[in-house]
Amino acid sequence: FSSDRVDIVFDSFGGSSIDGLLPDADIAFTFGGDGTLLSAASHLSSLGIPVVGVNAGRLGFLAEFSIEEIETFFDDVLEKKLPIEKRMLLRCKVYSKGLEKFNRLAVNEVAVMAGKPFRMIELLIEVEGEFLADPRSDGLIISTPTGSTAYNLSAGGPILSSALEAMVITPVSCQSLSFRPVVIPPDYRVCILPMKINRGTWVTLDGQASCSIKKHDCIEVTRAKSTFNVVSNPMRTYWNTLSDKLHWAKKPRYSETT
Amino acid sequence: FSSDRVDIVFDSFGGSSIDGLLPDADIAFTFGGDGTLLSAASHLSSLGIPVVGVNAGRLGFLAEFSIEEIETFFDDVLEKKLPIEKRMLLRCKVYSKGLEKFNRLAVNEVAVMAGKPFRMIELLIEVEGEFLADPRSDGLIISTPTGSTAYNLSAGGPILSSALEAMVITPVSCQSLSFRPVVIPPDYRVCILPMKINRGTWVTLDGQASCSIKKHDCIEVTRAKSTFNVVSNPMRTYWNTLSDKLHWAKKPRYSETT
Amino acid sequence: FSSDRVDIVFDSFGGSSIDGLLPDADIAFTFGGDGTLLSAASHLSSLGIPVVGVNAGRLGFLAEFSIEEIETFFDDVLEKKLPIEKRMLLRCKVYSKGLEKFNRLAVNEVAVMAGKPFRMIELLIEVEGEFLADPRSDGLIISTPTGSTAYNLSAGGPILSSALEAMVITPVSCQSLSFRPVVIPPDYRVCILPMKINRGTWVTLDGQASCSIKKHDCIEVTRAKSTFNVVSNPMRTYWNTLSDKLHWAKKPRYSETT
Amino acid sequence: FSSDRVDIVFDSFGGSSIDGLLPDADIAFTFGGDGTLLSAASHLSSLGIPVVGVNAGRLGFLAEFSIEEIETFFDDVLEKKLPIEKRMLLRCKVYSKGLEKFNRLAVNEVAVMAGKPFRMIELLIEVEGEFLADPRSDGLIISTPTGSTAYNLSAGGPILSSALEAMVITPVSCQSLSFRPVVIPPDYRVCILPMKINRGTWVTLDGQASCSIKKHDCIEVTRAKSTFNVVSNPMRTYWNTLSDKLHWAKKPRYSETT
Repeated sequence: FSSDRVDIVFDSFGGSSIDGLLPDADIAFTFGGDGTLLSAASHLSSLGIPVVGVNAGRLGFLAEFSIEEIETFFDDVLEKKLPIEKRMLLRCKVYSKGLEKFNRLAVNEVAVMAGKPFRMIELLIEVEGEFLADPRSDGLIISTPTGSTAYNLSAGGPILSSALEAMVITPVSCQSLSFRPVVIPPDYRVCILPMKINRGTWVTLDGQASCSIKKHDCIEVTRAKSTFNVVSNPMRTYWNTLSDKLHWAKKPRYSETT
Repeated sequence: FSSDRVDIVFDSFGGSSIDGLLPDADIAFTFGGDGTLLSAASHLSSLGIPVVGVNAGRLGFLAEFSIEEIETFFDDVLEKKLPIEKRMLLRCKVYSKGLEKFNRLAVNEVAVMAGKPFRMIELLIEVEGEFLADPRSDGLIISTPTGSTAYNLSAGGPILSSALEAMVITPVSCQSLSFRPVVIPPDYRVCILPMKINRGTWVTLDGQASCSIKKHDCIEVTRAKSTFNVVSNPMRTYWNTLSDKLHWAKKPRYSETT
Repeated sequence: FSSDRVDIVFDSFGGSSIDGLLPDADIAFTFGGDGTLLSAASHLSSLGIPVVGVNAGRLGFLAEFSIEEIETFFDDVLEKKLPIEKRMLLRCKVYSKGLEKFNRLAVNEVAVMAGKPFRMIELLIEVEGEFLADPRSDGLIISTPTGSTAYNLSAGGPILSSALEAMVITPVSCQSLSFRPVVIPPDYRVCILPMKINRGTWVTLDGQASCSIKKHDCIEVTRAKSTFNVVSNPMRTYWNTLSDKLHWAKKPRYSETT
Repeated sequence: FSSDRVDIVFDSFGGSSIDGLLPDADIAFTFGGDGTLLSAASHLSSLGIPVVGVNAGRLGFLAEFSIEEIETFFDDVLEKKLPIEKRMLLRCKVYSKGLEKFNRLAVNEVAVMAGKPFRMIELLIEVEGEFLADPRSDGLIISTPTGSTAYNLSAGGPILSSALEAMVITPVSCQSLSFRPVVIPPDYRVCILPMKINRGTWVTLDGQASCSIKKHDCIEVTRAKSTFNVVSNPMRTYWNTLSDKLHWAKKPRYSETT
């Protein structure tokens, strides 16, 4: 790379020495996978710095560039010629007896997990102050469009175009046979009230930050004010990546005669 | 009802005599079920007249008022005190050799149905000019949020809040095990190109208007310019209706001890 | 091949001249795909002749041998060293006013298809004389274990091991949100009574034989007395084939870091 | 009840004093719900004593009799006039370094649960010594026909008739989009080898007995030699109960006009 044109200011998150320099950065690169990018997301989005995810191994969903591709597009990135997708984030607050005990951002999803001793939990869900449902399940996922291809998809939720602004609510192993995932507007305020939970019940964000949940807590999920600005790889579409990585819509290998 | 305050100008659609009067109407009432309302939708939406759906029998999804409720809210309706939901519509055009052979509006969905002799059909789907997928299936549904609780739901698609603007693409009995429904922005242009179809393959809109499809046709689905303006029943939420009519999220009748 | 050791007696089905010779055959080979094998199944199973399916193109589900593999195993086949799977068949009879108007065997499935004008149909299902359910749907599939990986799977049904004897009942696009496929013992008698159907409603067997259905008809599905005896390819397991052909259980291509 | 005809020998499980008397019992009654019956199942099945489940509150799946119904059928029960269903059980053994560290019976299911910190786990599944699949998921369920309407159903598995002998393998929130539940013969030996698990990963049986799982353990699931003999309620079919309790196949409340 043309190191004369770039000031490399950080090597790993956690290095507090770079915090003073980072706010002045034009662009950030992460090297690793989606996990690396997710762990940097909260910090970068609050500063409004767009990020280029470089995937050391194979392609990622968010880390859209391979090493080879970033060499090709390096100049375009610096010259800000590549499109930047502004991905919506979720803010999750947990209140205990009226006091805020947890407050974090999520790129993919906020998930409530039943935990030990693995009895189904019962959560009352309100959207915009209206009763939505109170499913018994192994857990509940509130996902962004970005996260719709992650945990939400494994739990049976739909794929949301990254160009859409919305949230999707999907339970995990719901006892009700008739529950179906629900897609709601991005500005809706979602409240989750635990009716019956386990001692091991937690809320986790992007599989990273997490918080233990008690009986009378209230979990609030809203759209965050900031967005996560990701530089897009012009070589690939959202649908390409879905197909390449998750084998989405992959056709059977049928012989011609069938 | 207070007939002195209302000019009743039409009794049934098809009565051409009222066409001259209808444009001046402030509001339209339909009596029947969702089917009655759907059949009037195209006409009313082009005129921009809001509609109050009265369901003679039980409650409907679109026909949100029972006979009793409409008596209660009749004055509020006339005084325009009730909220009006502007529901997005789809425009479906079918082109054959470059010529438009079909052009209609849909409130719920545009569906391509395999038809006789019931072999799976293969449809190539493009969104905004990008290749999405080319599933083999019994059919394909492009649904509005309003239609998400109709055919789309039976085929395994998600529920979209009526307050959201989006389209959902859901195949029927897809041969690919990994296909999942896709929710896209409302302004996307969807093109469906038949790769392998049957002689009985049709496109149908809201289960009403329909058009036979041939090999080299192109089916285009976009958001319509007009909206379908439906007067909301303040007594019920979208989630109530889902639960009441479709038993959505209905909990098992478990005894206390389990 | 060693043509001195084999009398080749038929080239294509439909050639009636071979009917006299076929009953004396020790084994039958089909060349083509699963479709070819399915079309021969009824005839061969009534004679009890085991069949070796050779797939000209790629591998099939029933046509388990490639051209190369059949060369390797040709002697083993003739010396009856390869395992033979006895696959259960379904007999489907349609009665109209008490008279039998259709009577055929199915290897994969019996399917009732809504047909034009594509309204959902309502079918009352009885098993062993007990009311099972009366779903509204686009169709209904009664499948063998062999057929469980065909149409049944596209409609959301489970995979049944070919070593199991059972039937699976799966609706297509069921209006009830809480319907789930049902697996029943192989000796159960299934009766399907059309409550509301379309003029285009048909029953089809293996996507081949079919029969138009009228309002007061009765469709009876039972296990056939004969079995379909298919020579197994020792190089592959049922699970291999599922994975190879349908990408069943295929894992995402995730980078190491995620 | 006619207490002169019955020796009541136990009031609650855990009362060890009754253990000497129980083997001579002709029949056992449980009062409570399915949970009560499940907790007694292992003990009763090893003694071969048929059980009548009386559900204090509402109807249960296994506790098939209400208080009223048991009054009606009490004489029939004592005179052994009611049908007894022999329900298959699973035996689950966990081996650690070749040593058996857990060995229990399950009526409903054996479930491996990811547990804290809630990362997806990767389990390699073998059936009869053949590789089946190695899904990444939140968990894995091996269910009996009896258990098919319990946790298996919530996770998306099919319903198995209680008259069928089979096992069903269903993952919870599987990362692979193409995984579908698999129904296998009852005599198959299932081995589950943990490839990647969490520190909180457990195996649980019927939501009751449980065992922590470590990296090199091996979980073996087979059909138990004994059966669980449950007295059937002649007033209800399996399908009735499914419909009554789980709202299985419940039809939407549509008005006539739609």
